[in-house]
Amino acid sequence: MMDYPLLMRTLLLRAARYFPKKEILSIFPDEIFRYTYGDYFKRTCQLANALKSLGIKKGDRVASIALNNHRHLELYFGVPCMGAVLHTANFRLPPQHLVYILNHAEDKVLFIDEDLLIIADMIKDQLKTVKHFVVLSQSGKLPNTTLSPVYLYDDWISQFSDEYDFPEDLDEKDPAMMCYTSATTGDPKGVVYTHRSIVLHSYAGAVTFGTFESDCALHIVPMFHANAWGMPFISVGMGIKQILPGRETLNMEKICRVIADEKVTVTCGVPTIWMMLYDYLEKGGWHDFSTLRVIASGGSACPLSLMRGLNEKYNFPIRQAYGGTETSPLATAALEKSYMTNLSPDQLYSVRNSAGLPALGVDMKVMNTVTGREVKNDGTEMGEIYLKGPWIADAYYKDPERSRQSFVDGWFHTGDMGTLDEEGYLRIVDRTKDLVKSGGEWISSVDLENMIMAHPKVLEAAIIGVPDPKWQEVPFGCIVVQQGETLTAAELQEFLKDKVKASYWIPKQYAFISALPKTSVMKFDKKGLRQMYANGQLK
Amino acid sequence: MMDYPLLMRTLLLRAARYFPKKEILSIFPDEIFRYTYGDYFKRTCQLANALKSLGIKKGDRVASIALNNHRHLELYFGVPCMGAVLHTANFRLPPQHLVYILNHAEDKVLFIDEDLLIIADMIKDQLKTVKHFVVLSQSGKLPNTTLSPVYLYDDWISQFSDEYDFPEDLDEKDPAMMCYTSATTGDPKGVVYTHRSIVLHSYAGAVTFGTFESDCALHIVPMFHANAWGMPFISVGMGIKQILPGRETLNMEKICRVIADEKVTVTCGVPTIWMMLYDYLEKGGWHDFSTLRVIASGGSACPLSLMRGLNEKYNFPIRQAYGGTETSPLATAALEKSYMTNLSPDQLYSVRNSAGLPALGVDMKVMNTVTGREVKNDGTEMGEIYLKGPWIADAYYKDPERSRQSFVDGWFHTGDMGTLDEEGYLRIVDRTKDLVKSGGEWISSVDLENMIMAHPKVLEAAIIGVPDPKWQEVPFGCIVVQQGETLTAAELQEFLKDKVKASYWIPKQYAFISALPKTSVMKFDKKGLRQMYANGQLK
Repeated sequence: MMDYPLLMRTLLLRAARYFPKKEILSIFPDEIFRYTYGDYFKRTCQLANALKSLGIKKGDRVASIALNNHRHLELYFGVPCMGAVLHTANFRLPPQHLVYILNHAEDKVLFIDEDLLIIADMIKDQLKTVKHFVVLSQSGKLPNTTLSPVYLYDDWISQFSDEYDFPEDLDEKDPAMMCYTSATTGDPKGVVYTHRSIVLHSYAGAVTFGTFESDCALHIVPMFHANAWGMPFISVGMGIKQILPGRETLNMEKICRVIADEKVTVTCGVPTIWMMLYDYLEKGGWHDFSTLRVIASGGSACPLSLMRGLNEKYNFPIRQAYGGTETSPLATAALEKSYMTNLSPDQLYSVRNSAGLPALGVDMKVMNTVTGREVKNDGTEMGEIYLKGPWIADAYYKDPERSRQSFVDGWFHTGDMGTLDEEGYLRIVDRTKDLVKSGGEWISSVDLENMIMAHPKVLEAAIIGVPDPKWQEVPFGCIVVQQGETLTAAELQEFLKDKVKASYWIPKQYAFISALPKTSVMKFDKKGLRQMYANGQLK
Repeated sequence: MMDYPLLMRTLLLRAARYFPKKEILSIFPDEIFRYTYGDYFKRTCQLANALKSLGIKKGDRVASIALNNHRHLELYFGVPCMGAVLHTANFRLPPQHLVYILNHAEDKVLFIDEDLLIIADMIKDQLKTVKHFVVLSQSGKLPNTTLSPVYLYDDWISQFSDEYDFPEDLDEKDPAMMCYTSATTGDPKGVVYTHRSIVLHSYAGAVTFGTFESDCALHIVPMFHANAWGMPFISVGMGIKQILPGRETLNMEKICRVIADEKVTVTCGVPTIWMMLYDYLEKGGWHDFSTLRVIASGGSACPLSLMRGLNEKYNFPIRQAYGGTETSPLATAALEKSYMTNLSPDQLYSVRNSAGLPALGVDMKVMNTVTGREVKNDGTEMGEIYLKGPWIADAYYKDPERSRQSFVDGWFHTGDMGTLDEEGYLRIVDRTKDLVKSGGEWISSVDLENMIMAHPKVLEAAIIGVPDPKWQEVPFGCIVVQQGETLTAAELQEFLKDKVKASYWIPKQYAFISALPKTSVMKFDKKGLRQMYANGQLK
């Protein structure tokens, strides 16, 4: 067989050759921008020529601080296909972390959205390697900025040829993209994706969710968050119509309008987004989801009550998937098996609300680190989830110390605890560090949150373990009540009584707060909550 | 990213771990055998242990002369996953070719179906490397045979452990499977598939046809014919229910019964099979195709009239694909684009009857070898089809001379002539050697056969070029008339008058014969027809 490398080039050229008429849309606050893959390819070629003119060469890192829009999508292919590496920087990180990752990656060029320019202005003096700034602008005007030298993206690339001979002689293991994941302690950790890992992850994603050329993909996941979960890559490779909602991502009215108008079939996102959507729908928000086929929820556990509410009341076909920045991210997906058609709704939702089965190509084991053996498929024995596969990272970028902790004997140790049921479905019990150990017994904060969020008056709930003189640690509930409702600790305790596995699961202490802090990728920020508790801010 | 090899092991273990309850069926003349992937995996382990006991080691070749059944499917994974190479021998080859390929591949063990034992008995004295014979038997009895040493498959493997630690440390470019393709002249040519090529082809096949765990696959293509077009691999990897029809493959009544009873959703085959099916249906044969989702037709051109008849009259959703033994085989597939919904039926069938677009991962160009440039996307300029990709062969096994002719500068020169239309769809004009050159103008035998087979009285038609003193070469029609019908040359010429591109396309000479000779993979045997013509047998 030919020694033919798996390169992102193959995805790009397929779109350009066979699907030049298919559309890509950017949603801006007061316009919808549309163009075709034909146009897209030409601008991607111009971008590659422009980068070459700056002296950017194979392996050089180039950063983006950008929203989800078509220019960012041009970077997604233009940068890696010409041989460089696109570092999609998470602009929601604290400034000192943003400075750290741009310096750590040694980015030479920084592409930045006009809406986010203030961030670059703020940190520019601390950037050690960035030599050029390029502003991604829809307004077409260069805003006031102290950045220098600075180019206006559209004007800049338009000076270059719209033909580019994307090299075929890259190694499939050459780096293509990178992003950083925030760590519990210390600086963010970098993960580098290769051409090979991206192509294989694209195949696996398409096979898992059955994506097809006729699909229409809406990218709600930020493009800095594990490559928008890889959806842009497979979309380009299959000529799938793409919609990039930019600043409108959290505008549920607009999102619902776009889903209906553009006949969106697939999307994905974190549960926080689905909570916002559910809230919008429960208030009577307009929607038409008749074209939606599959919605992947990931990043953190999707509360069962939310999943059922969206599925049953609004025909919003949400499915859970599991993975992280280190896993490209698709590791497992919760799709029921074809012979499960006679399950009761409760059993069916138990499957759908699991983390699922490994995607084709991923090897998984769940290790009871006490016994040193894999857990039994009994749905109760708990162990740490280990993953292996061609799109799973084997190190953090230039970080041997923390790499050694997470990548051991060829396995990625996820730091997540899980169980396996007899059908092989994985269920995430908790992040290792979020488990509450009370009187020597484990309490899953995820399970407990799930139960509490099923209460009709609860909007959001997070459980943290707090010190206790008698039980070492006890669960503490941080509760956001639905607007206009009131709720007491006693009511919640009564509600939980016949739901928990044992009475010591029921939190005795609660803080009723107006909103939960979120991480930069919209997960509940438990580190933040623990800090607030330590500071006496949660009462 | 991890340096994790793409191995068939990954497909096998996924089925064993997550789909042990799913079924595999073998259809025998008087019974349907059923077992599960759980059983399948255990026997595959036993087989691997049994092979090891014979001293079979990494890289050794092991041959099968077998029909489509579950034992053959055990060989499909047991042999390559333990490190050896399964050579699926085409038992329809003439004996001297069969001897050649078994000796050329240096097969050490020969697995042979009890139904085909006579073949092994016939050739055994000429086999230079085979040391062991294993009989795949459903009857459970060792038939009379002169083979020695000979084992009864089920008894033999049952002596071994049903656990096997399939090695993870193979190289993904290690050979896994091989088969030979008959050449126009000379000995058959061997193609070796690697673990990598098989895994990637599996992904691409699933992505192209949207196969899913809920599918049910019926393997009509012989398992010696380019690995049954790869369907068994992706079926195992996704836990898809599989049906292996063995000797009943050509029994259309049985096939239709199985499709309905087992709720078959996907299958594939050569046009000759679909002609037999159409004939059965036209005679009022019972059928229920309501579960069928996608049927791939390949190997040779599917007449448009046949495709439309099956689709429109019987709701048999046939789609054309293109490839060969050298291409694993999927190279292109003719699926319409989502925006083609407003095409007229004629336009739509023109797309579906094309060879289609390259599968995700295949690179294609159509070279006008006269101008030395790629053809224009105008649907008329003709060129030779070149292919490149990770599941395209780069050589024939131990055959440098013929490898040099077909594999040039990194491209596989298919020997097929084609055109590209403005949407990028490939249409096969002809095999280079089947094109008729009449008075300096090319005539496509494929197009002409298509036109003739649309005549209601014609069952099969093949066109060959025959010498002519005035025009150098003229088309000659070999016609099989539908049972009970009569047809004259004059009628055909009248029928073709307003269909052909120019009057010189209309054949002046015809032979009306009772059946067309077929190749070992059921294509019309034009080499045979040319020989018959030369011998004066066609009049």
